[in-house]
Amino acid sequence: MELRIDRQAMVPVVQQIVDGMIDWIARNGVPPSTRLPSVRQIARCNLLNQSCVVQACERLVAQGILASRPGTGFMVAALPGAGSRRLEPATIASTVAGPGRGGLPGKLNLGGGGLPESWRESDDLSYAIGQVARTDMSSLFSYSSPLGLPALREQIVKRLRLVNVQADAEQILTTGGATHALDLIVRTLLKAGDSVVVESPGYAPLFDLLRLHGVHLLEVRRTPNGPDTDALASLLEQFQPVAVFINSHHQNPTGSCLSLAVAQQVLKLCKAFDVRLIEDDVYADLHNGNGTRLAALDDRVIYVGSFSKTLSSSLRVGFLLADQELINRLARVKMICSLGTSSFNEAVLASLLASGAYRKLVSRQRQRLNIDRAAALQALEDADWEVFGKPCGGLFIWARAPVTDPVRLRRQAHGSDVSLAMAQTFSPSGEASDWQRINVAYACDPRARQFFRSTRVDRPQAF
Amino acid sequence: MELRIDRQAMVPVVQQIVDGMIDWIARNGVPPSTRLPSVRQIARCNLLNQSCVVQACERLVAQGILASRPGTGFMVAALPGAGSRRLEPATIASTVAGPGRGGLPGKLNLGGGGLPESWRESDDLSYAIGQVARTDMSSLFSYSSPLGLPALREQIVKRLRLVNVQADAEQILTTGGATHALDLIVRTLLKAGDSVVVESPGYAPLFDLLRLHGVHLLEVRRTPNGPDTDALASLLEQFQPVAVFINSHHQNPTGSCLSLAVAQQVLKLCKAFDVRLIEDDVYADLHNGNGTRLAALDDRVIYVGSFSKTLSSSLRVGFLLADQELINRLARVKMICSLGTSSFNEAVLASLLASGAYRKLVSRQRQRLNIDRAAALQALEDADWEVFGKPCGGLFIWARAPVTDPVRLRRQAHGSDVSLAMAQTFSPSGEASDWQRINVAYACDPRARQFFRSTRVDRPQAF
Repeated sequence: MELRIDRQAMVPVVQQIVDGMIDWIARNGVPPSTRLPSVRQIARCNLLNQSCVVQACERLVAQGILASRPGTGFMVAALPGAGSRRLEPATIASTVAGPGRGGLPGKLNLGGGGLPESWRESDDLSYAIGQVARTDMSSLFSYSSPLGLPALREQIVKRLRLVNVQADAEQILTTGGATHALDLIVRTLLKAGDSVVVESPGYAPLFDLLRLHGVHLLEVRRTPNGPDTDALASLLEQFQPVAVFINSHHQNPTGSCLSLAVAQQVLKLCKAFDVRLIEDDVYADLHNGNGTRLAALDDRVIYVGSFSKTLSSSLRVGFLLADQELINRLARVKMICSLGTSSFNEAVLASLLASGAYRKLVSRQRQRLNIDRAAALQALEDADWEVFGKPCGGLFIWARAPVTDPVRLRRQAHGSDVSLAMAQTFSPSGEASDWQRINVAYACDPRARQFFRSTRVDRPQAF
Repeated sequence: MELRIDRQAMVPVVQQIVDGMIDWIARNGVPPSTRLPSVRQIARCNLLNQSCVVQACERLVAQGILASRPGTGFMVAALPGAGSRRLEPATIASTVAGPGRGGLPGKLNLGGGGLPESWRESDDLSYAIGQVARTDMSSLFSYSSPLGLPALREQIVKRLRLVNVQADAEQILTTGGATHALDLIVRTLLKAGDSVVVESPGYAPLFDLLRLHGVHLLEVRRTPNGPDTDALASLLEQFQPVAVFINSHHQNPTGSCLSLAVAQQVLKLCKAFDVRLIEDDVYADLHNGNGTRLAALDDRVIYVGSFSKTLSSSLRVGFLLADQELINRLARVKMICSLGTSSFNEAVLASLLASGAYRKLVSRQRQRLNIDRAAALQALEDADWEVFGKPCGGLFIWARAPVTDPVRLRRQAHGSDVSLAMAQTFSPSGEASDWQRINVAYACDPRARQFFRSTRVDRPQAF
């Protein structure tokens, strides 16, 4: 079994072994119950460490692709429901990844909001988890302090410095992800009947959260450089909202970034009308370079960050930054409503940030996304799609097919085994839209390519 | 270094090595920077596995009691602030355990709400965490489903059956601990201005949570058999509250359990007045035997459980049980406010429940608590304290000193290095009380014994 491991590659060795074995099974049409060569043989023939091979096999067992029989090593498992059909790598990959958040089972989640599971990297994370579990009894057992684990808050302060945001550790509050951070802000600062400004298109769960709290939504159009400042000015003047929510970088769903000029204008307006400004920057670590942060320009901005988009959505670790007085109020609400966040999960994050493993992870993710984004933009251009402000980083491209008939588009997507996001969910008022959120990390899959080709006007596909 | 390991003991071997080494350092007054015998020597002379000794040493390094120098093995670390004074086991134990939730640094947290960190057991938990981290990629990375990890919900259904509560997995919603479960209930069922009935004395964080939501609290006196049902009847009649919150077993702070007669009367009243009944049963697993559950008698009861009191307060895993329609509403609120709970932490719990390790853990904790509770009750009797309904399980004894002057009692506690809980926090209206919450797990510490003795009237201590 030759696995073609590339030691210079961005993908960790164990993940390469996993991918290589899936590929080997698929390429050779290896039938269920076939015994694999021994771990020692696989390791020797690929110049690998045996423990890496065992780790990869254990993962494949957990994913239901291999089975383990004591004394006889590993064998190819029967894929549930697959009968004896030949396994295609894409089939296995989507079995492993599951339907994905908002996607449909067995379909490519082209409109998805996060990284595919196959892009996630477990080596450093598993190691850090094991280390904390073995050595940090306090993090393993105890309730957290109200602000969250000090070691994590100190690491967050260091990372914020990289994007020119200055903060003390006492101004950081850890949360169970960015949505929990937004929830704490809403519960602490807003009351039913208040109005706030949100971007359109924008982050759908924020709209649900505000509505749950009885808050009235005012929509400001998102341009490729940030919110439309003229429209914002007139909303602030006309309705006296309490707060403005802006997703500064690689905005969900448009992928666009705030320009310095727009940021300055937004800050000026919010100051003039005495309105709270909340900066949602959950895609910060997928940005190439520094970029413009509202929180770097004005220390009254409330800043929200997360590790769910890069490291793990499962650990539920995010944070917010605000002035000391507000942080204490937010911390009180956090404790009353949940007795705090998970010290264990926060200790794992702190360890990965301190060791540099997180920095290297996001650097690899950015490089990979850059390659796939360039290819996706090319594929969209070839298929005559219109792109909303060519994104320079992050996960998303917001784009419009040459023929925007929604029924036709869904049929084309279905024919290519592709699942799209419901465009109207990104509109605060649920308005229909011709635009699609294209997740760069899925856009190089052959099914996405086929879908894009099928939407070309000059070469219609038959369905 | 002879460690006196007892292979039949309830405490896991690695924890015994940790305790034994602390004891050895303290007993022999071993000064900082002293090199320990080699791991091999320690293992051989105590008939131990070397890896257990290494694990124990690593924990002691993490706790700052040992230091590790590459090539030279382990040595005794300098205790911060301890200078060269001889280390007492109790001093080290409290350094390791930290101040504890609500306790004072360096004091015995006799009024504390949870198990001491030294009672927690890490072996099975660390192992399960490592296993999930190495093999369950989906739990490591992905957002959870709205109801929470199916494997965990199925295990919870099985455990509930042991206390005669029948449920489907689709009626279980996982939460980030019991307080988060209560928060979801409050957000979903109550609105500002509503009235609810709570027990007095009762669980302080619930009062804060209800007040944060603008809900009005009606107090019903807690008797040793549950809420005072006559008082409850008159509150229901007079104020038409929306819900009643009852802590059924080993209530916090009184340690008392609901009797069958009171449970039936409460259910009858809630049915007659069409009031939602919420059963908080977070001490369920510290109960000897089955006992009476409201949710076992009536399937309209909303039931709240947690693993924070037994396994870990850090993982933040709890759950609630309700009818299908309400569970779906609660799940929606859960997703909107946090995008769900941590699949990783839930997978760890599911694994410990499935393997039986959790069942064995709580059985050991119950045995240990039974021994310490009997001793604590004897110590209180010897010191002429009055005990509120002798508890038959759980963590707490609610008791009153023979002389209840609060200033005198605080002075006596201070003189014995003991920290007490503020009794008025258990009253919804913040009323002062002569009663003290005594945490059984701390009550056998020499400092607690000294404190009890010091409160005796016939033999006053000099301070």
